[in-house]
Amino acid sequence: MAQAVRVTAERIRKLEVQGARNVAIAAIKALEALAEETSAKTRKQFMKELKDTQATLFASRATEPLMRNAVRWIISQVENSGKENGDALAKIVASSSNQFLKNLETSKELIAEIGAKRIRNNMVVFTHCHSSTVTHLLSKAKEEGKTFEVVCTETRPVFQGRITAKEMLALGVKTTFIVDSAARSFMRNADIVIVGADAITSEGNVINKIGTGTIALLAHEARKPFYVVAELLKFDPATVCGEYLQIEERSPKEVWKDAPEKLEIRNPAFDVTRRDFIHGVICEEGVIPPHAVSEVILRKHPWIF
Amino acid sequence: MAQAVRVTAERIRKLEVQGARNVAIAAIKALEALAEETSAKTRKQFMKELKDTQATLFASRATEPLMRNAVRWIISQVENSGKENGDALAKIVASSSNQFLKNLETSKELIAEIGAKRIRNNMVVFTHCHSSTVTHLLSKAKEEGKTFEVVCTETRPVFQGRITAKEMLALGVKTTFIVDSAARSFMRNADIVIVGADAITSEGNVINKIGTGTIALLAHEARKPFYVVAELLKFDPATVCGEYLQIEERSPKEVWKDAPEKLEIRNPAFDVTRRDFIHGVICEEGVIPPHAVSEVILRKHPWIF
Amino acid sequence: MAQAVRVTAERIRKLEVQGARNVAIAAIKALEALAEETSAKTRKQFMKELKDTQATLFASRATEPLMRNAVRWIISQVENSGKENGDALAKIVASSSNQFLKNLETSKELIAEIGAKRIRNNMVVFTHCHSSTVTHLLSKAKEEGKTFEVVCTETRPVFQGRITAKEMLALGVKTTFIVDSAARSFMRNADIVIVGADAITSEGNVINKIGTGTIALLAHEARKPFYVVAELLKFDPATVCGEYLQIEERSPKEVWKDAPEKLEIRNPAFDVTRRDFIHGVICEEGVIPPHAVSEVILRKHPWIF
Amino acid sequence: MAQAVRVTAERIRKLEVQGARNVAIAAIKALEALAEETSAKTRKQFMKELKDTQATLFASRATEPLMRNAVRWIISQVENSGKENGDALAKIVASSSNQFLKNLETSKELIAEIGAKRIRNNMVVFTHCHSSTVTHLLSKAKEEGKTFEVVCTETRPVFQGRITAKEMLALGVKTTFIVDSAARSFMRNADIVIVGADAITSEGNVINKIGTGTIALLAHEARKPFYVVAELLKFDPATVCGEYLQIEERSPKEVWKDAPEKLEIRNPAFDVTRRDFIHGVICEEGVIPPHAVSEVILRKHPWIF
Amino acid sequence: MAQAVRVTAERIRKLEVQGARNVAIAAIKALEALAEETSAKTRKQFMKELKDTQATLFASRATEPLMRNAVRWIISQVENSGKENGDALAKIVASSSNQFLKNLETSKELIAEIGAKRIRNNMVVFTHCHSSTVTHLLSKAKEEGKTFEVVCTETRPVFQGRITAKEMLALGVKTTFIVDSAARSFMRNADIVIVGADAITSEGNVINKIGTGTIALLAHEARKPFYVVAELLKFDPATVCGEYLQIEERSPKEVWKDAPEKLEIRNPAFDVTRRDFIHGVICEEGVIPPHAVSEVILRKHPWIF
Amino acid sequence: MAQAVRVTAERIRKLEVQGARNVAIAAIKALEALAEETSAKTRKQFMKELKDTQATLFASRATEPLMRNAVRWIISQVENSGKENGDALAKIVASSSNQFLKNLETSKELIAEIGAKRIRNNMVVFTHCHSSTVTHLLSKAKEEGKTFEVVCTETRPVFQGRITAKEMLALGVKTTFIVDSAARSFMRNADIVIVGADAITSEGNVINKIGTGTIALLAHEARKPFYVVAELLKFDPATVCGEYLQIEERSPKEVWKDAPEKLEIRNPAFDVTRRDFIHGVICEEGVIPPHAVSEVILRKHPWIF
Repeated sequence: MAQAVRVTAERIRKLEVQGARNVAIAAIKALEALAEETSAKTRKQFMKELKDTQATLFASRATEPLMRNAVRWIISQVENSGKENGDALAKIVASSSNQFLKNLETSKELIAEIGAKRIRNNMVVFTHCHSSTVTHLLSKAKEEGKTFEVVCTETRPVFQGRITAKEMLALGVKTTFIVDSAARSFMRNADIVIVGADAITSEGNVINKIGTGTIALLAHEARKPFYVVAELLKFDPATVCGEYLQIEERSPKEVWKDAPEKLEIRNPAFDVTRRDFIHGVICEEGVIPPHAVSEVILRKHPWIF
Repeated sequence: MAQAVRVTAERIRKLEVQGARNVAIAAIKALEALAEETSAKTRKQFMKELKDTQATLFASRATEPLMRNAVRWIISQVENSGKENGDALAKIVASSSNQFLKNLETSKELIAEIGAKRIRNNMVVFTHCHSSTVTHLLSKAKEEGKTFEVVCTETRPVFQGRITAKEMLALGVKTTFIVDSAARSFMRNADIVIVGADAITSEGNVINKIGTGTIALLAHEARKPFYVVAELLKFDPATVCGEYLQIEERSPKEVWKDAPEKLEIRNPAFDVTRRDFIHGVICEEGVIPPHAVSEVILRKHPWIF
Repeated sequence: MAQAVRVTAERIRKLEVQGARNVAIAAIKALEALAEETSAKTRKQFMKELKDTQATLFASRATEPLMRNAVRWIISQVENSGKENGDALAKIVASSSNQFLKNLETSKELIAEIGAKRIRNNMVVFTHCHSSTVTHLLSKAKEEGKTFEVVCTETRPVFQGRITAKEMLALGVKTTFIVDSAARSFMRNADIVIVGADAITSEGNVINKIGTGTIALLAHEARKPFYVVAELLKFDPATVCGEYLQIEERSPKEVWKDAPEKLEIRNPAFDVTRRDFIHGVICEEGVIPPHAVSEVILRKHPWIF
Repeated sequence: MAQAVRVTAERIRKLEVQGARNVAIAAIKALEALAEETSAKTRKQFMKELKDTQATLFASRATEPLMRNAVRWIISQVENSGKENGDALAKIVASSSNQFLKNLETSKELIAEIGAKRIRNNMVVFTHCHSSTVTHLLSKAKEEGKTFEVVCTETRPVFQGRITAKEMLALGVKTTFIVDSAARSFMRNADIVIVGADAITSEGNVINKIGTGTIALLAHEARKPFYVVAELLKFDPATVCGEYLQIEERSPKEVWKDAPEKLEIRNPAFDVTRRDFIHGVICEEGVIPPHAVSEVILRKHPWIF
Repeated sequence: MAQAVRVTAERIRKLEVQGARNVAIAAIKALEALAEETSAKTRKQFMKELKDTQATLFASRATEPLMRNAVRWIISQVENSGKENGDALAKIVASSSNQFLKNLETSKELIAEIGAKRIRNNMVVFTHCHSSTVTHLLSKAKEEGKTFEVVCTETRPVFQGRITAKEMLALGVKTTFIVDSAARSFMRNADIVIVGADAITSEGNVINKIGTGTIALLAHEARKPFYVVAELLKFDPATVCGEYLQIEERSPKEVWKDAPEKLEIRNPAFDVTRRDFIHGVICEEGVIPPHAVSEVILRKHPWIF
Repeated sequence: MAQAVRVTAERIRKLEVQGARNVAIAAIKALEALAEETSAKTRKQFMKELKDTQATLFASRATEPLMRNAVRWIISQVENSGKENGDALAKIVASSSNQFLKNLETSKELIAEIGAKRIRNNMVVFTHCHSSTVTHLLSKAKEEGKTFEVVCTETRPVFQGRITAKEMLALGVKTTFIVDSAARSFMRNADIVIVGADAITSEGNVINKIGTGTIALLAHEARKPFYVVAELLKFDPATVCGEYLQIEERSPKEVWKDAPEKLEIRNPAFDVTRRDFIHGVICEEGVIPPHAVSEVILRKHPWIF
């Protein structure tokens, strides 16, 4: 296995790479490096290396379906290529990595185009945490000349909301910034809620940054439309088979650096938002109900299973 | 007007004194100081000084019913005393201040005794922010030999949850500490929610630290009993007359010290929890439905109006 | 029994007099006329006339608690007067009628003052049907220099919403007018809902113009505060004893003049709004939860039972 | 202490006496027996006997507020009588026992009269378990010539619903009988739900036969009015002080006679119905919201505390 | 472009043609007229004429998916025909127009057959506005010998409910007619709610006559099954791409002819009913959950995208 | 028609065979017997016998989709076989019966494997009635070494919960047993609810043992995940066409053996659980939202229609 793979896996585990997209891209790059460095001659040797790499990358983080799907897809391309010799197979890794990244980019553009249509003039858009897909969508709407405001939460413990706020200000969008627990007071004046996603389950639920489930409940209470913006490949095929997504817990230090010794600090990174609270999933296939995600996946990405 | 009054009013305005109880005690002390220093000879002169003091203290903070009720009560005692000379009236200020503080202490004890009965062995108690009345209740339960756990939120922006956590650990109670937006994930395992209050309205709603309304909604969603612990004198008589409690906004610096320039940071200190989410108000008169608070007030404290 | 009583009862029955206040005033005037015209010499004779009048007036309309309470109160004043001769008793009718009307006027003013405090600048106020108490409250708010908008429904079948719209325009208030079934679409932008009441039950429910229950449900769905504005004497003491308010059905002609022959047109004039949907009752005693109305009545108007 | 007291307490403990009314009556009879048999000469001696009796009776069953209030009332009458000699005090026990039973009877009649007004022709009345107050109300409605149907659940584990069914058939009322878990299917066609109560708490919640909370939730889901029929003296003053009503668990044999050995059978006799599900409490003071019960108690029965 | 197209577009814009079916049929007839009159010789010329016609028809009304889908389908048939000469292509317009109308008729029959199975004897069917698909379904049920009643709302501002009422009476069905805001009072006795649809979105929401969303909420509150009857081709493919259906506003004159000058009358013709309130969509493919509509469309009508 | 068919149909009608699986297996065995005994020579003769058998079996019980789908599938295999002679066709019955039973077994295993992943250590699993699929799933989880508890209801009137309790004890699982109406009290401590199903409709609703709908509502109230475990072939294709599943009513004797004569005992065997209460359907295709079941069926079992 290439050194690059080990390094990448390590960086993912240590949270030096963050965000579903970035983790997927890092894994793809690691596969590319492996393809470049490999000395495998036969298909058998090469496939073994790929499988080892897959195992290493999968072990680096609990819940990263986009990365896992990227790896699955590239390996499936190699498997189905019919090629037998190491070099030829390595080339397929390179070309399909390339393709995957291009598809990812196209998805992002499509999502921004589709989602931007939901932003109308004078809207107040509420968001939580930071999602590059969400901010891309909003910058698209801004480009199209729409006038809107954004309310964003600070998103403890790591304050990703500050990144969102800065990006919105850079776009010239009027931005209001609040602590997480003030969300209910500001939901009243929001017109739409848009958040990203880390994973989508076979039942149509969404895993996203801790606090998203509460935001969804607040939107539901206040009868505001709540949309999730996500590439279809955030779908986690393991959930079809009954696996329940494991919610990663991060370091207590993120929450309180010099906490009293005996204090138990719990720091789950994600929570689950039930499909009932989600008006629609805005993905590259359009705006669909979360209940239909697994059927759409089956139609568009049968290789995923 | 005594110097002490001006100083106290200033300290209250600058948030150097915090917490409904502490603000009320500071105001009482200021009245006592006034009574000591006054050179008023006649009832008329003395009442004028008292009324000026009242105006100054009331202007120091938007929503502080306990403090206001303390001042109202002491002045009503003076008014009803029938005394005419300055010295005699000053003595009444002193004695009724004393009485008020004693009553406040008794209320706190009664509330702790009553509320502690709701804590049963092996319970997980969820709380938000820091309330000395809540922690007193829990220490009472601990004294009585009960075993329970506490989950507390950090309570951004000023992290009062850390005070709660420290006090609980000092009592020897197992304590779990989470960011505010993880509340929904931990509500599932809670057995009871207990919070304090800054004010109670004529409709039976409760004003408390920002985020309390969300905690109440989460408790409601998860069918967990949600109790508010409060002295009856947190009732705000102005709400009977239709005044709506003004929600104080504090400095943006509390939220983000070096925020980008154009960013609008909103920092409301309180929110409203509707009576429908409140199982009971634990007060010195017992456990009552929030809907009945104004009737109980009328029965026990008719002077308040 | 005076001719005026019979005429008044007839006019009430034929709906020539409408609105709880107007019906009450008409009944009081009829009592006054009776007192003027009566030839009763003894207390016994006079009381008989009064009781007959009461029976006639009560029979004129199914659900008119304000009118009934007016009659009850005047008669109770006569009964408790200790006077024995017809003339003296007639004078008591006159003076207490006078007093009742004055109290009614005072209540209206108090309600307007209290309620106007709930109107803040830039609010959108949603209302249904026409209530002189509601429009008086809004004109008070306007007088106080507040800027607000009103959305009002047309209120089929008799279009009382048109009266509301005209009164609001006359005040210089920006007014939006919609059909009843568009209420849900416009609730989204409302900030507060304020309606009148025809009757309040012992359980705290409110009887008002058909459609009010739906408006309340829509406000609840959209988390908008829903207030009922009503004099306490709209309380119906018969409901304490289990009587269920009978919902009056009016002429099918109001709904469709030249309807097909076999069509069954149902035209209930009122519906019931459950207390759970009512944030507060704004009455002359302040803003109170609907659950407390019967206790407040007992305290303020014990003669009602 | 009289032998009768010990025997009665034993019979109550063994569930040989059942139903809140019957238990209260048995306790009163025991007090009467004590008064007859006592050899106490002085007030002090007599009061001691009474207090011992109270302790013995209170210990016989966990949650029996009506019985406890009966005992409290009779003792308070003795205490306030001013009499000093044993015989005189014993007579007061006799007369006040008598009075209490008479009041109990009057309450039952009043409740039946008030509640029967809620039964209208062609209604389907849904009830659960057996309550003599409920069946008395229904027999009253039948006497008044009303035509209605009853749906009753069998009420496992002891099948009290069979008693209700038989009583209804005896009245000539069309009766439908279902298993408890079919309640949701039949709620659809019900017009009103009426159940009894074992206890009412200071917060306005009702303790009644296991399953009542579910029936209330089903009524709420189906938007059917849910009424609790109860004498005010079912109020438990201990709940004001924070005591939580202990839910009695009965013998597993009631559920499954020859159960497998290791099986844990849980057989709670009661559950809690929250005030939000209760449209009204029909008591001797009228139809009141459950939220107001503690205020009404305070007004009518101040001796209870 | 044929004169007929311009005339039709004009009539659609002026609302002289109404109802999704009728508008679609008018557009098809216009296409047929164009095909008859065209002087286009080549495929290129003919396709240009078709595309112009499409643009003109699409511009005539904001939200008419059935008409748009009709035009899309006919044009797609022409495009895929492989024919090159004008005459041949014109014939395809004629034959496919014919086919579309026949399919529409078949769908209507299928929907009536499927839906009629949901009508059982003695049911009370609640409907809103007028939908020929709904009344066809009901007439089918009547033909099958079923006995049922209908409750219909008048449906302000244009009183389409009167058409429904007349059609039902003509069928010999007992019909109750109410104002829109009495819906909540009559929902209690309904057994099923059936309404039509103007459009279905990719998320599974339904656009229909103003007031439908409220009826759905009332049905939900009262736990009554709420069905939407619609041809699958009411699906709007633009919603997949994020377009939000624009809600057409009609003339204020419809609401109030001689309204005061400054009054703002808002007259939205439609509203949105969220999928959560819809038990099932009864379409030509059977009874399906609204969440599945977009998947079914994709399977049956891939040409739509 | 074979004697075996008549006997089997009779046994099914008399409820001597119970449970969806067992009924399906009995019907398959009857078809096999028919194939063995038949004297049909031609395809036409054989098909007639099969169709008669189908009619007889379908008539034996109202709602048995699994059995009906088994019969449908075997007949469709015969129809599509292209064989013409009786013997050859009979062999196809034998082989496809065999195949169906094998598939059924595989589904059960798959469901157990998938579902067992949802059981985590220390969970409290709540179930209702007895379902061999559910208990197989739990025994699988136990085999995998997981520690969990089970709460099961007795399930009146036939006490199938006792079978569940015995099976769980046999597995060595700690089991708590309660009466049906105590479910709400124990839902509080449950972590997951898992029940079986008798049928699934085209709208995604589930028909199961009476009481399941209430359990689902209770789980919803308490925010506990509610899963239905079912083979896809429990889907009832008739519901697509609008047929509403008829709820079978069983003998009143099951409820009360020696009931009073005039008492109407209603004993519906099943009720409907709406899709909104179902977190997921655990089937052989994975964990899917109930809304998607009809689409999955169409993809996997197109022959069903």
